[in-house]
Amino acid sequence: MPELHSDLLGALSARLGAKHVIADPAGMESYLVEERKLYRGTALAVVRPGSTEEVAFVVRECARAKVAVVPQGGNTGLVGGGVPHTGIVLSLARLDRIREVNPFNATMIVEAGCILRNVQDAAEKVDCIFPLSLASEGSCRIGGNISTNAGGVNVLRYGNTRELVLGLEVVLADGRIWNGLKSLRKDNTGYDLKNLFIGSEGTLGIVTAAVLKLFPKPKTRVTAFIGCASPHAALDLFEGLRQTMGDELTAFEFMPHFALDIVLRHAPGAVRPLSGDHAAYALIEVASPDPDLDLRELLEKALGAAFENGTVEDAAIAASEAQNAALWHLRESLSDVQGLEGGSIKHDVSVPVSDVADFIVTASRACEEALPGIRVCAFGHFGDGNIHFNLTQPVDMEKPLFLAQWERFNRIVHDIVHAMNGSISAEHGVGLIKRDELARYKDPVALDLMKTLKRALDPQNILNPGKVVALEGDLPPALPMGKKG
Amino acid sequence: MPELHSDLLGALSARLGAKHVIADPAGMESYLVEERKLYRGTALAVVRPGSTEEVAFVVRECARAKVAVVPQGGNTGLVGGGVPHTGIVLSLARLDRIREVNPFNATMIVEAGCILRNVQDAAEKVDCIFPLSLASEGSCRIGGNISTNAGGVNVLRYGNTRELVLGLEVVLADGRIWNGLKSLRKDNTGYDLKNLFIGSEGTLGIVTAAVLKLFPKPKTRVTAFIGCASPHAALDLFEGLRQTMGDELTAFEFMPHFALDIVLRHAPGAVRPLSGDHAAYALIEVASPDPDLDLRELLEKALGAAFENGTVEDAAIAASEAQNAALWHLRESLSDVQGLEGGSIKHDVSVPVSDVADFIVTASRACEEALPGIRVCAFGHFGDGNIHFNLTQPVDMEKPLFLAQWERFNRIVHDIVHAMNGSISAEHGVGLIKRDELARYKDPVALDLMKTLKRALDPQNILNPGKVVALEGDLPPALPMGKKG
Repeated sequence: MPELHSDLLGALSARLGAKHVIADPAGMESYLVEERKLYRGTALAVVRPGSTEEVAFVVRECARAKVAVVPQGGNTGLVGGGVPHTGIVLSLARLDRIREVNPFNATMIVEAGCILRNVQDAAEKVDCIFPLSLASEGSCRIGGNISTNAGGVNVLRYGNTRELVLGLEVVLADGRIWNGLKSLRKDNTGYDLKNLFIGSEGTLGIVTAAVLKLFPKPKTRVTAFIGCASPHAALDLFEGLRQTMGDELTAFEFMPHFALDIVLRHAPGAVRPLSGDHAAYALIEVASPDPDLDLRELLEKALGAAFENGTVEDAAIAASEAQNAALWHLRESLSDVQGLEGGSIKHDVSVPVSDVADFIVTASRACEEALPGIRVCAFGHFGDGNIHFNLTQPVDMEKPLFLAQWERFNRIVHDIVHAMNGSISAEHGVGLIKRDELARYKDPVALDLMKTLKRALDPQNILNPGKVVALEGDLPPALPMGKKG
Repeated sequence: MPELHSDLLGALSARLGAKHVIADPAGMESYLVEERKLYRGTALAVVRPGSTEEVAFVVRECARAKVAVVPQGGNTGLVGGGVPHTGIVLSLARLDRIREVNPFNATMIVEAGCILRNVQDAAEKVDCIFPLSLASEGSCRIGGNISTNAGGVNVLRYGNTRELVLGLEVVLADGRIWNGLKSLRKDNTGYDLKNLFIGSEGTLGIVTAAVLKLFPKPKTRVTAFIGCASPHAALDLFEGLRQTMGDELTAFEFMPHFALDIVLRHAPGAVRPLSGDHAAYALIEVASPDPDLDLRELLEKALGAAFENGTVEDAAIAASEAQNAALWHLRESLSDVQGLEGGSIKHDVSVPVSDVADFIVTASRACEEALPGIRVCAFGHFGDGNIHFNLTQPVDMEKPLFLAQWERFNRIVHDIVHAMNGSISAEHGVGLIKRDELARYKDPVALDLMKTLKRALDPQNILNPGKVVALEGDLPPALPMGKKG
């Protein structure tokens, strides 16, 4: 190790305590490999500061030594954004205090390392909700959610993470702390710094704390599982429900027949929701903070109309919280069971909501033509226009042979998305895995603006270098550890 | 005129047509003076491009000649943000096409020069609403609303302008066009460029078009005018209604007794809403897209509970759309009638919603102690924590003597706002009038970040120079034409 680096680690140990500067391979292991095992990184050390001031100290020292800093929360990201190539990993895990819960202002102030579920629980304790909800909520950390602008199942009603944040505290590339922890609904005193850091994946600054919005806790919720003849019928249903139910419609998730089929085949405890088979399924939820509102009656009425005009073929409306949960279980099991059917080539895309059925049909056909026997598992946040357009291998194909076509199918799917003025990364971000794909599809002026911002805010390129946008001198994307899948 | 400038105007005339390059004093007059007549600017010329490409051409030519460009929409801003000191005024008024209305995606694409009311009307035609609504909606233009992140009376339910914009088209400081006209609900492909331009008051780029969000049109609305014993009782009422009515609560506006008193005294057609007098009044609205929902019954029930526990002293619930309008008329008349009571020193501030009653009481007392007889007219968007904390002169004082104390009362009020972690500009922006006040109160790291962004995106400082943040070489704030008021 060069002397400079050893000086740096010595300085960090002196300030943070030796046990919070981890440089042995075994101790570093879990920070170097990400959830899907696509990438293995390398780093000088993992440091675990315990306060915003310590984060600032680490960044200041690294800036002085020109050593990269890769911030990491729960390390649950799906795009390799937290994998280091060089420099140090800065874990936010010890910044896990909930600083304030204010139900009267409908806000809370949390540190970046708080696990999402703990944030949700703290809101529930004061009869509110923090609505961000996603599969990894038991281990992801709010700083990671913020730096990736996480989505999830409640975006339809409550928005992306971006819409749930009122203020931020951020450590900048030179180690200064920006205190933007405002709990205000309106503030027009200058440029919107907050949104610049949200979704920038730790490349412009390191989020250390945030002011989050809370919402009144729904007092009633009703879930329904609905069978439709096609994605287009599901879209008609969505449009109709949105017109009448407005914000009471809190979720509208989509699953094709293939998806329900593999869930029923593989997921423990999955119960068939409807007696017959349908080409397209919608899992919907309506909710209200008003305990006196008869949501079930309102929903039955809306679905009755949709049944009569042929939009809906069949529907099951949950009659209890247990039945609500059983229907959600079908949707939530889907991510886990896909792997049991073999290799899977994945896409996280969005199009205008009005085009989502067209997209599913067009892209499905293109993939089926490109590889007969491929099984399209296009599911997800239909009401947001966000589809996890996943492709499961043909039954009789070798998995590696299928996965070798990853880039080919990326091109087919992303070209269709691009032609529909959509997004090739709706909610998972860019990280490493989509960095060069982004350079292909993004408006060149936008890409250039991103580079200008990166250079202005991180002139030494030490914050999570090589992620989101590649600057001159950045490494190529890390080599995957094996085939993707 | 220097040769360089005459060359520039010649080039602009050749491209735009001579009649769209106005350099005579009479033709320029209305572009040089702003609504409240606080400032008079100077400019080489006013140009009126007719397309995004022409806007880009103008900026490119000005960049080459190092001449400032001051973008202007409806020229209805309240902070001097559109007043030129030098260079040319670029009017967006001719970019007034509505490019697309898509009720199925709940979006529309509009050009910057569209008058807000025309945008609202186009949404209504497809049974949707564009919810931004403010006093100047008949003449302000959407590009100005976007560049100032306008607020208004529907923020409680629908958010600020920032929350209503999905995509932008922007001409940059070098004349390039960034096409970010995406109609997507989710898009995590890189930095959030959109929010950087929204609210930057034309200092980072010139918005030429935008994708706006539409919402289902409410099918029922009920307005109520409520008398409370104090601002704190009004806050209790707000907290209670938010908990049960959630998003059906679309507006919660506040007026003190003094405000209702001058409205009833001066406003044509104003009708007393309640038989008795109360210290604090709330104008609230509940609305729903569901035509079957009995909102009046839900509201009566909620207010009944508030009446029983003493939060509410009296309430009038409108029984027809005409009565809804009559109650709103009281609130909408307030801006006009204040001037009839003499000089007015104005503040547009926000605090956390949970502190809004404390703020009103504390700031009122401080002002009344500072000048006995002063009449506090603190009204506005209570549910957003945004108060127009206006001070009307004592009855027997000379108006100029009162207005001479403008800076003194700014200091008293803004110091209290600052101590409550509030904002000294909640919805009107910074422009010229609050630029130096901002430098006093804004976090210095934030101010420095703002300057860094300005220098990165507009290295020649030609876009609306001297507004929002002052860089080296910028002129001091323009001299007011007379006393403010």
